[in-house]
Amino acid sequence: MKSTVYEGNKTFTVIEREMEAPARGEVRIKVAYVGVCGTDVHIYHGMMDKRVKTPLTIGHEMSGVVDAVGEGVSGFHIGEKVVVRPLDHRGQKPSDKGISHICEDLKFIGIDSPGAMQQYWNVPAFTLHKLGATTDLKLAALIEPLSVACHDVRMAELKAGETAVVLGGGPIGMLVAMVARQKGANVIISEVNETRIGMAREWGFTAVNPAKIDLVEFVKGETGNRLADVVFEVSGVQAAVDVMTEVAGIRGRIVMVAIHGQPKSVSLFKFFWKELKLIGARVYEPEDYEEAIALVEGGALPLERMITAVRPLHAIQQVFEDIDRQPDGMKVLMDCQV
Amino acid sequence: MKSTVYEGNKTFTVIEREMEAPARGEVRIKVAYVGVCGTDVHIYHGMMDKRVKTPLTIGHEMSGVVDAVGEGVSGFHIGEKVVVRPLDHRGQKPSDKGISHICEDLKFIGIDSPGAMQQYWNVPAFTLHKLGATTDLKLAALIEPLSVACHDVRMAELKAGETAVVLGGGPIGMLVAMVARQKGANVIISEVNETRIGMAREWGFTAVNPAKIDLVEFVKGETGNRLADVVFEVSGVQAAVDVMTEVAGIRGRIVMVAIHGQPKSVSLFKFFWKELKLIGARVYEPEDYEEAIALVEGGALPLERMITAVRPLHAIQQVFEDIDRQPDGMKVLMDCQV
Ligand SMILES: NC(=O)c1ccc[n+]([C@@H]2O[C@H](COP(=O)([O-])OP(=O)(O)OC[C@H]3O[C@@H](n4cnc5c(N)ncnc54)[C@H](O)[C@@H]3O)[C@@H](O)[C@H]2O)c1
Ligand SMILES: NC(=O)c1ccc[n+]([C@@H]2O[C@H](COP(=O)([O-])OP(=O)(O)OC[C@H]3O[C@@H](n4cnc5c(N)ncnc54)[C@H](O)[C@@H]3O)[C@@H](O)[C@H]2O)c1
Ligand SMILES: [Zn+2]
Ligand SMILES: [Zn+2]
Repeated sequence: MKSTVYEGNKTFTVIEREMEAPARGEVRIKVAYVGVCGTDVHIYHGMMDKRVKTPLTIGHEMSGVVDAVGEGVSGFHIGEKVVVRPLDHRGQKPSDKGISHICEDLKFIGIDSPGAMQQYWNVPAFTLHKLGATTDLKLAALIEPLSVACHDVRMAELKAGETAVVLGGGPIGMLVAMVARQKGANVIISEVNETRIGMAREWGFTAVNPAKIDLVEFVKGETGNRLADVVFEVSGVQAAVDVMTEVAGIRGRIVMVAIHGQPKSVSLFKFFWKELKLIGARVYEPEDYEEAIALVEGGALPLERMITAVRPLHAIQQVFEDIDRQPDGMKVLMDCQV
Repeated sequence: MKSTVYEGNKTFTVIEREMEAPARGEVRIKVAYVGVCGTDVHIYHGMMDKRVKTPLTIGHEMSGVVDAVGEGVSGFHIGEKVVVRPLDHRGQKPSDKGISHICEDLKFIGIDSPGAMQQYWNVPAFTLHKLGATTDLKLAALIEPLSVACHDVRMAELKAGETAVVLGGGPIGMLVAMVARQKGANVIISEVNETRIGMAREWGFTAVNPAKIDLVEFVKGETGNRLADVVFEVSGVQAAVDVMTEVAGIRGRIVMVAIHGQPKSVSLFKFFWKELKLIGARVYEPEDYEEAIALVEGGALPLERMITAVRPLHAIQQVFEDIDRQPDGMKVLMDCQV
């Protein structure tokens, strides 16, 4: 079987190795597609070298088919389509209060342990969610990031008729926007990349460039001065942190999806003044996966056009180099069986 | 009647003027006691000169007795004990979504319009809450700040058995701590002023100085590593903003009570990582007033010792000068009838 290995120093290798039998409690998956995530790009750039123990196979946005079932695993059968929820919470402690998806000793599979960018992948059975027999495996590779979006929208307690402003129209922001619209919200996307603004508009979203227009005035106009009920911060930049407290209306909820590596300057005064809420949201819980699966299988979201390229697994080095050169693309999938 | 007037430039005058009949919809109150609030001290320092239109009678933490009832007012009778909820929301608009206590055009009575530091005070009847006939009018002057604390604890959705860390043991922080303990929470107060730490301990609180001990380690020790379920930021300083995201456990709620005049550096990463919530809380709603009244009348809180001085109204200039010299004191009341 072919496996890719991140070696550090912006280098992937592709190796041929023996397929392994699944250990007790594990399932072997024949990987279909793996999406390249912003985190994978961070790893490639060496920004997570402290955490990532090289050499390591990375990748966590995937779809596949059950290929072998280890001892002690029941309920899974060879040939079934599945996705992996790449969270290993086996280290959880009482101080985690049973909130396992963000427990202190959480291991993220594909970052802290071997990931999906290979032809076959052994994972604990508890990470699996089943798909329908006719589910498109390309779209299914979007279930992981779509689950992030489902979690974010759920944490926001977004209701139909509310106005949601999404700051940052990258892959995660776009999926948040789609899920929010699906819930009946009026969605406004704020994005500085004109290609991405164009994409958002093609998908029927109101999308604006806050470098060109006054976002707060724009949202006032769209809402009869109510401003946003919910703001999703999905950009990771200071400019968006500055505007998030302005664009939120009275008792607005701001969901912090982006990963801000450094502390940011925040108007705590506005939190007091308008009784805003800031809601941290990290990855997903099983129910978010189930919702994302239902959304993919229901076919109501324009997910096909999120996939801007499908490349063969063995081209991995080229794939990452191309992503660096092409910041407009949305989701690149690697086809693990060619 | 005697009335005090803030003239600007750290100066109060005491004047003698005619008592006014209450206008339509108003009630005249014979003011019993007025507490000096941190905001009053800010006004005295000239820090709110842009907002405060001098000359102005200030003061908003008060108790009194109905002295005359204007036309169109029903349900109030001369001699009844009352407190004023000093919020004038008559300018509210549809974009305020019916959330009147923080509506965009809210006027704070005693800052934006004449306040209580005088012998008689005319106020709109809708601002009044009735007290029992035997209620202590000194303690009743604490109902306004106690309502702030009730609101903060309510916004936190604090439950019995949870651990609450209060950052800042000034008058508001102490009242938050009392209400939180009353709800069955385990309360830890963090305060840098040793006199205030001593006061908190006399009231039976666990109180520590974060300049002398490691607050996070301390709270870990007290909670079996769970850290705080709820953090109240009631200090207004960067050091507390730094520690609030550390001392909160997984899915902890941080209530922003303090008024931070300048943006602060905030670890948004921790919000993401631990799925923290930041909850802005401003003043109070009618139900918070009712809860504060019940707490004062129930007698379960050690409120007497919050009152560190009672001074005659005519000494107002001296009172503010003394507060500046004496940062350890808690609540100074002015007796408006001597
Ligand atoms: N909470 C989670 O569990 C979770 C999961 C996945 C990703 N993330 C984080 O979500 C964020 C978004 O992920 P992504 O993959 O979509 O990243 P991305 O970098 O592709 O998207 C960010 C977008 O923000 C835009 N942007 C930059 N400045 C802006 C501004 N001032 N206003 C509006 N938009 C602006 C960029 O042009 C870009 O399109 C990242 O911070 C990522 O780490 C969080
Ligand atoms: N949300 C509201 O509606 C509302 C209402 C009233 C007051 N406030 C605000 O609440 C805050 C507290 O009010 P107050 O009257 O009690 O003020 P205060 O200044 O008397 O209390 C603040 C306390 O914080 C302490 N402190 C300073 N540095 C600290 C640190 N690093 N760690 C812990 N404690 C520290 C100070 O020693 C002081 O005792 C103020 O910011 C005030 O403006 C808000
Ligand atoms: Zn990802
Ligand atoms: Zn006050």
